[in-house]
Amino acid sequence: MHSSLYAVAPVDRSLEAALRRKIDTKTKPLGALGRLEELALQIGLVRASLAPALARPHIVVFAGDHGAAKAGVSAYPQDVTWQMVENFLAGGAAINVFARANGIGLTVVDAGVAHDFGARPNLVDAKIAPGTANFIEGAAMTAAQRDAALARGAELVRGLAAEGCDAIGFGEMGIGNTAAASLITHCLTGAALDACVGRGTGLDDAGLARKRALLGQALERFDGPRDDALAVLAQFGGFEIAMMAGAMLAAAQARLVVLVDGFICGAAALVAARLAPAFLDYAVFCHASAEPGHQAQMATLGAKPLIDLGMRLGEGTGAAVAWPLLRAACAFVNEMASFESAGVSESLA
Amino acid sequence: MHSSLYAVAPVDRSLEAALRRKIDTKTKPLGALGRLEELALQIGLVRASLAPALARPHIVVFAGDHGAAKAGVSAYPQDVTWQMVENFLAGGAAINVFARANGIGLTVVDAGVAHDFGARPNLVDAKIAPGTANFIEGAAMTAAQRDAALARGAELVRGLAAEGCDAIGFGEMGIGNTAAASLITHCLTGAALDACVGRGTGLDDAGLARKRALLGQALERFDGPRDDALAVLAQFGGFEIAMMAGAMLAAAQARLVVLVDGFICGAAALVAARLAPAFLDYAVFCHASAEPGHQAQMATLGAKPLIDLGMRLGEGTGAAVAWPLLRAACAFVNEMASFESAGVSESLA
Repeated sequence: MHSSLYAVAPVDRSLEAALRRKIDTKTKPLGALGRLEELALQIGLVRASLAPALARPHIVVFAGDHGAAKAGVSAYPQDVTWQMVENFLAGGAAINVFARANGIGLTVVDAGVAHDFGARPNLVDAKIAPGTANFIEGAAMTAAQRDAALARGAELVRGLAAEGCDAIGFGEMGIGNTAAASLITHCLTGAALDACVGRGTGLDDAGLARKRALLGQALERFDGPRDDALAVLAQFGGFEIAMMAGAMLAAAQARLVVLVDGFICGAAALVAARLAPAFLDYAVFCHASAEPGHQAQMATLGAKPLIDLGMRLGEGTGAAVAWPLLRAACAFVNEMASFESAGVSESLA
Repeated sequence: MHSSLYAVAPVDRSLEAALRRKIDTKTKPLGALGRLEELALQIGLVRASLAPALARPHIVVFAGDHGAAKAGVSAYPQDVTWQMVENFLAGGAAINVFARANGIGLTVVDAGVAHDFGARPNLVDAKIAPGTANFIEGAAMTAAQRDAALARGAELVRGLAAEGCDAIGFGEMGIGNTAAASLITHCLTGAALDACVGRGTGLDDAGLARKRALLGQALERFDGPRDDALAVLAQFGGFEIAMMAGAMLAAAQARLVVLVDGFICGAAALVAARLAPAFLDYAVFCHASAEPGHQAQMATLGAKPLIDLGMRLGEGTGAAVAWPLLRAACAFVNEMASFESAGVSESLA
């Protein structure tokens, strides 16, 4: 991969004062639209426009398998990864439904599922390998595989940007990937491992204890630098997480608004932000995760998710469900009257 | 008014087990859609359907003036009420923008604005009087005015239900109405007055202190029963709050899903729930308010708002912005595949 992938320029803040003025003169008390005002400002800066319109939202779901899944870190069998990809392709999964309901395009990517799908018209074949190696015993992937995944994710996003996409969300599917995300989160936030490990798709107490013990083993055998995002990504990351990190960086480079879903996407965002801190200018954190490690991610990234509906499904569903809020933020900036245009009196203060 | 307005039947729970089964067999871990699952269950029960579709959402904004506004309980002059009604009619207010963005119908009602609008095609003239009396000195309205407002709100909703509306949200506009809502909230929740009084549209510290002192005076001169919702409504309520309470009760009677916005609507919901506790079966609390009294309302009603974006605008904007979540809840119940239909393996547990 080329190191140019990491070059993300901060947003140009020259429009900031004009955007704030436009927001503040709308017919509402100052600040009364709360986070929608912050969103509107951010979107205006990302799109470098006083009239930002996000007309072509898209969600890309990356699927990948994890060698560690067979060691017992998940409540579901590994086959569910490819079965759920089939469900995505058939249009019956939650992300299909929410993307349709909210007018969002959807692309499904095989980043490294341990299954042969054959040639499928709706599936992007970006398979790095049929699943990662078991990170409990050794590195999940080679440096070359990691770099290929990063580059492939970036390439995908550049294609979508060229087609006119202006806001992009990411989702994932991969049995065992909360385990990978927990390890990445522990390494890149410094939070205690136990505070980064949760029940995933629904482990019971015994399952959670086993998951913690296994992840402790994985950490013990890793003697590399724990604050090196690229090293950590190769050690523990899934192919879907690596591809998502590359996609996030390319999206920021292309000046797209980036919708970040929950815990797994948050791990990819940690990697992206470590490689290019300006990535955060472009990122909207959509949904709080029930996974405890999400709080560590948000604290490290200085972020607060838009909504918290107690969802813990992945697939990009938190981003899809939050999307209308971004649309609403653009709409008020573009369509609301100002005090002057509407002839409304301002505050007595 | 007729006491039949208060007769709200609880939802019929005979479909509950079948709805839960349908939700639980969707291709997702059990409970993984969090509050969207609770919403789907509630909507299914309200609409008495295993395939609930909310196709005709509508928001009604009630505007009214408050005699107390001139005593200094607001940061804005009273004229802003009618000016904002003109803004609603011209389509330039936040509620217009959000209703359009999310495909929601909108009706604007003059419940008692201190202004002569003349005959206007888009404005429902339900004016009880040109503003309430100053509640600091005496009752805001007579019992007859209160009953007329309740009945008029109910009549409006029955008309919308007859036209096919299946989900209805309420909003309000009225300079000074956070003060009225604070008094109602104090009386009907028992929370301390200071915990029920906030900055409204943006009072500074001195303004907040003045507002608290004035509301303390209003309470002192009222020697009636503080837990009698109808008495409290007449003493302190705005016409828009009374009309909204009647509208809420009629909406529940008509088995509509009721979207409750923030603090002012919450005061109307307190009244509605006191008159007919089963009203809560139909109510979806949409947005947390920045007004401190909203917490007392939610605690008393046992409710938790869907979202908290720090909005404090009123007009029904919190309901309009939250609406896509209800649509998403219906969509997943109707469109998602089940484990069986998609051929996806279930949990190992």
